[in-house]
Amino acid sequence: MTHHIHHCQVYYEDTDLSGMVYHANYLKFFERAREHFLGPDELVRLLQEEGIGFVVYKAALSYREGARLGDKLEIRSRLELVSAFRLIFHQNAHRIDNDRPMVEGRIELVCVNQEQKLVPLPSGVVDSVTALQESS
Amino acid sequence: MTHHIHHCQVYYEDTDLSGMVYHANYLKFFERAREHFLGPDELVRLLQEEGIGFVVYKAALSYREGARLGDKLEIRSRLELVSAFRLIFHQNAHRIDNDRPMVEGRIELVCVNQEQKLVPLPSGVVDSVTALQESS
Amino acid sequence: MTHHIHHCQVYYEDTDLSGMVYHANYLKFFERAREHFLGPDELVRLLQEEGIGFVVYKAALSYREGARLGDKLEIRSRLELVSAFRLIFHQNAHRIDNDRPMVEGRIELVCVNQEQKLVPLPSGVVDSVTALQESS
Amino acid sequence: MTHHIHHCQVYYEDTDLSGMVYHANYLKFFERAREHFLGPDELVRLLQEEGIGFVVYKAALSYREGARLGDKLEIRSRLELVSAFRLIFHQNAHRIDNDRPMVEGRIELVCVNQEQKLVPLPSGVVDSVTALQESS
Repeated sequence: MTHHIHHCQVYYEDTDLSGMVYHANYLKFFERAREHFLGPDELVRLLQEEGIGFVVYKAALSYREGARLGDKLEIRSRLELVSAFRLIFHQNAHRIDNDRPMVEGRIELVCVNQEQKLVPLPSGVVDSVTALQESS
Repeated sequence: MTHHIHHCQVYYEDTDLSGMVYHANYLKFFERAREHFLGPDELVRLLQEEGIGFVVYKAALSYREGARLGDKLEIRSRLELVSAFRLIFHQNAHRIDNDRPMVEGRIELVCVNQEQKLVPLPSGVVDSVTALQESS
Repeated sequence: MTHHIHHCQVYYEDTDLSGMVYHANYLKFFERAREHFLGPDELVRLLQEEGIGFVVYKAALSYREGARLGDKLEIRSRLELVSAFRLIFHQNAHRIDNDRPMVEGRIELVCVNQEQKLVPLPSGVVDSVTALQESS
Repeated sequence: MTHHIHHCQVYYEDTDLSGMVYHANYLKFFERAREHFLGPDELVRLLQEEGIGFVVYKAALSYREGARLGDKLEIRSRLELVSAFRLIFHQNAHRIDNDRPMVEGRIELVCVNQEQKLVPLPSGVVDSVTALQESS
C-alpha cells in the first residue's frame, strides 16, 4: 500500500525561538494530511449531516530532525484499520523526496457522535480503506 | 476608569524564529484578557443558555517592542461602549509595572446569535460597563 | 497592478468553538501569503546572510464573514512601497473566485537587523516592487 | 515525590469547532508547565549564557476526556531522570482537584547546544531532580 502524500511548507508561524518548528505543530501538519486523506468535503458532510466527528485518542511522536523556515515538507500517511471503531494513521514528516523521516507519528482515532459517545467508523471510510488494503 | 489587568507570561509556543513573540499572538493575549474582563463563566453561560457569542469585527494593532521568552506581561484593558450593539476594547501589552506599551490594540466587538445574526449586547454587560464608567 | 494570489484551506486547527476561523489566524494566512509574495528562499537568505528580517509594525483587520472548516480561501495581496523603510501589504481573504472579501487586512512592515534596529528595505525588494508598479 | 502543579485555563484560542480543546494544544499546556517546573529565568539563562536548550525527543499522549472553554485545568508534572542525557516528564491534565486525568502525557527531552548537538543535561537540573527524588 502506497502512502498518501500531503505537502506543507514551514512558515514563520510554525517556528519558535530555536529557529525550528515548534514540536506541537507537527500534530497540526499530520492533521492537515489526514483531512486531505479522508477528504475535507466528506469530513464536513459527516459532521453536518450525521453528527459524526473523528477524535484523536492516542498520539505518539518521535522527533529526529527539526524542520526550518522555508522547508518544503511532505507528510506521508498510511492508514491501518484496527477494528470497526479504531483507525491508526502512521504519519511521517519528510523533506521532499527524502526517505529519512524528520518526525515519525502514530495517531489513533475513533469516531464520536454529538454527545461524544463512541460510534463505529463510517462505512464509507471503512470500505475505501479496505479497498486500498486489498489492492496493495 | 481604571484598567483591567491580566497577567500572561511568554512561553516557547508564543515565540518565532526572531526570538520574539509572533505578531498574531498578541491577539490571543488580548482575547484572554477580555475573557477574564467579561468573566469566563458568564461567557460560557451566554453561549450555552442564550446562544450569544462575541465576535471580533475590527482589530488594529501597533507594535512598538517585541516581548521575549520568559517575559511577564500585563495586558491592560479598558472597555468603551459605543452603542447598544458595539464595544471597543482598548488593550495594551506592557511589561509588569512599566507604563510604556509594547503593543497597543483596539478591538471592536459585536454579538451574534447562533445564526450569526447581529444582536444587541447582553444587558448584563451593558449595565456593568455603564456602572464602571459612572463610577470613574 | 494585479494581486498576488495565495491559496489556503481552512483546517480543524484554524477553527474555534464558534465553528469559524479564530480571528487571529487570518494574520497567519496573510503572513503565509507575504512569504510567498517575497519568496521564502529570499527571506531565508536575507535572514541568514544579511541578518535582515521583516517585522510587522502595524496591522489592521476588518472581519466581514467567517470562514469555516474545508473552505478554500485565496489571499489576495497587493504591495505598496511607502518609503525606503516602510511597506504596506493590502491583503484580503476571499472564497476562491469570489470578489467580496471575507476579511480585509492592511499590514505595515519594516526591516530590522539582528540588533532590532531599523534598516532600509532590501534593494531587491524595492526594485521588484517598483518594476511591478511601473508595469501596471 | 509530589507533583509540580501548573494551572491553566481554557480560552477560545485553545478550542476547535468540536467545542473542545484542539488535541495539539495539550502539548503547549505541558510545555508551559515544564517551563515553570524548570524555572523560566533559568531556561533563558541556559539559552543565552550557555547556548543550551531543551528539545522534545519523544512525546506520547492519551486523550480520555476533552476540556472545554472556561475549564480550569491543572497540569501535574513529575520528572524522571533517565540518564545524564535524558529526562522524562510524566504530565497529566486534570480538572482542578480531580484525580482522574483528562489527558496523560509522557514527554522525553534531551539538551542540545547551538549546533544542535546532544549535550549532557545541565548539572543544576540534575542536582535539583536528584535532591527531589531522594527527599521523596
